Amino acid sequence: MQPDQPVTEEVDGLPPSLTVTVQRVRYAEPGMQAVSDQVAQEVPVALVYNGISHAVMMASPSDLEDFARGFSLSEGVVSRVQQIYDIRILQQHQPAGLVLEIQIAAECVDQLKRQKRQLAGRTGCGLCGIDSLAALPQSCVQVSAGPPIPLTALQAALRQMPALQVQNAVTGALHAAAFASLDGQITMLREDVGRHNALDKLTGALAQHWRHVPRPDGFVLLSSRASYELVQKTAVANIRLMVCLSAPTALALQLAQEAGICLIGFARHSGLVIYTHPEAVLLSDD
Amino acid sequence: MQPDQPVTEEVDGLPPSLTVTVQRVRYAEPGMQAVSDQVAQEVPVALVYNGISHAVMMASPSDLEDFARGFSLSEGVVSRVQQIYDIRILQQHQPAGLVLEIQIAAECVDQLKRQKRQLAGRTGCGLCGIDSLAALPQSCVQVSAGPPIPLTALQAALRQMPALQVQNAVTGALHAAAFASLDGQITMLREDVGRHNALDKLTGALAQHWRHVPRPDGFVLLSSRASYELVQKTAVANIRLMVCLSAPTALALQLAQEAGICLIGFARHSGLVIYTHPEAVLLSDD
Repeated sequence: MQPDQPVTEEVDGLPPSLTVTVQRVRYAEPGMQAVSDQVAQEVPVALVYNGISHAVMMASPSDLEDFARGFSLSEGVVSRVQQIYDIRILQQHQPAGLVLEIQIAAECVDQLKRQKRQLAGRTGCGLCGIDSLAALPQSCVQVSAGPPIPLTALQAALRQMPALQVQNAVTGALHAAAFASLDGQITMLREDVGRHNALDKLTGALAQHWRHVPRPDGFVLLSSRASYELVQKTAVANIRLMVCLSAPTALALQLAQEAGICLIGFARHSGLVIYTHPEAVLLSDD
Repeated sequence: MQPDQPVTEEVDGLPPSLTVTVQRVRYAEPGMQAVSDQVAQEVPVALVYNGISHAVMMASPSDLEDFARGFSLSEGVVSRVQQIYDIRILQQHQPAGLVLEIQIAAECVDQLKRQKRQLAGRTGCGLCGIDSLAALPQSCVQVSAGPPIPLTALQAALRQMPALQVQNAVTGALHAAAFASLDGQITMLREDVGRHNALDKLTGALAQHWRHVPRPDGFVLLSSRASYELVQKTAVANIRLMVCLSAPTALALQLAQEAGICLIGFARHSGLVIYTHPEAVLLSDD
């Protein structure tokens, strides 16, 4: 007997952008001009753990193994990347989307079944699947302390970041999350249409990389504003300093203060603003 | 017998921002400078329908009645704003957050119980509470057609918008969604730390306003990029043109095309890009 026609096929991902014809209007010129343009893909990505559907997120369809690892860690589905045994990426055509089939350790599945929050669709708040305030997390993890990080390292990393945002350069639609070592070198960068996904991809890629090499000290850079949830993910990844290009919220500050994270915002050409734990930054004149 | 001490109290909302002391670093000057700064509030907001907990969203704690109406409409909890009978805003202290107690028509509660997706936490994707691709919506509503909208009206509305973003002017952390009439006048604008919440607040405020005055033709402006979900909310609100300051995703374009929405992005001082239904825009030289 022949097997049924497969409705899915294994893929590495999908192209990060599509070419479309758009109408460009310049106020200084008459009429519209049809031009070819690149737009970022945004794809429903279903996460399935050991055969159990867990969540669907809208995401950029690249670096999806990193996303699977980072999401699983930041959501607490697994506590160590070693508990993820296998990740397969499947393309489904009807309904269209990608499926991440993730095999995790048996003890994580038991935990998942107990806490299953039917979370889904998050890109912004850290509360997915919670339906009442009583279900909110009441405490947060503490990051490890370390020596002050030189301001010159932050400046160096910020200067490198735009050139590494290669998908965003094509479409203008993606956020980036990067990790830099204490000398200011960016060693990893990931992009996504959602800023929270970008950070999950980054922390997932780092966790996998650090299975094989000693974990260095360093900090994260985010192309976006800082929400509560971005601080939460940074805390879970045990990274003690985060630099955002734009503004944080009050709740993000509060969580950063409690978690021991130095939160920096409004990182611009002329300077930056340190919101919490300023002792974590070493000024060149100290 | 005395009633128990209430753990909640009725409020109109919370202050949109908090004053904090931050350390400002200017690269051209030595040291850090302690200065007072305003940061945007970000608050867990629980939505409770007729006593049933439904979702918790992170949101700016202003215009929450608008948010309750817009969210209920865009999520399909109600199909008309008239099905919302009452909204109370309660502040809860332990765990801290706001609770929107919403009374809706009985037929909506029945529907809600059947479809309860335990959605929560969304700010970005339109898929909250969906845990597998099979649960994705397979079709979308069509917006009503109308005469072309003058490009000059888009330009006029875009010029007005920054001055109306009063909360963002203080904190730099908020997105805005605005409605403008065909003459380019912005008649309603709402702000939120989440771009999707900002649009829900706007459509909720519009739906309530239009109970009392004839609904005018017009268009929306968004300070953000355009995701799939923002187009979906615009379609549900039956608004046929949306202007975003930044880039759309490919899926946003696809949905706009199907829904009959003219989607415009990269609205800048020098011009803009029309992605779908360019026939909806009237150039001044037509």
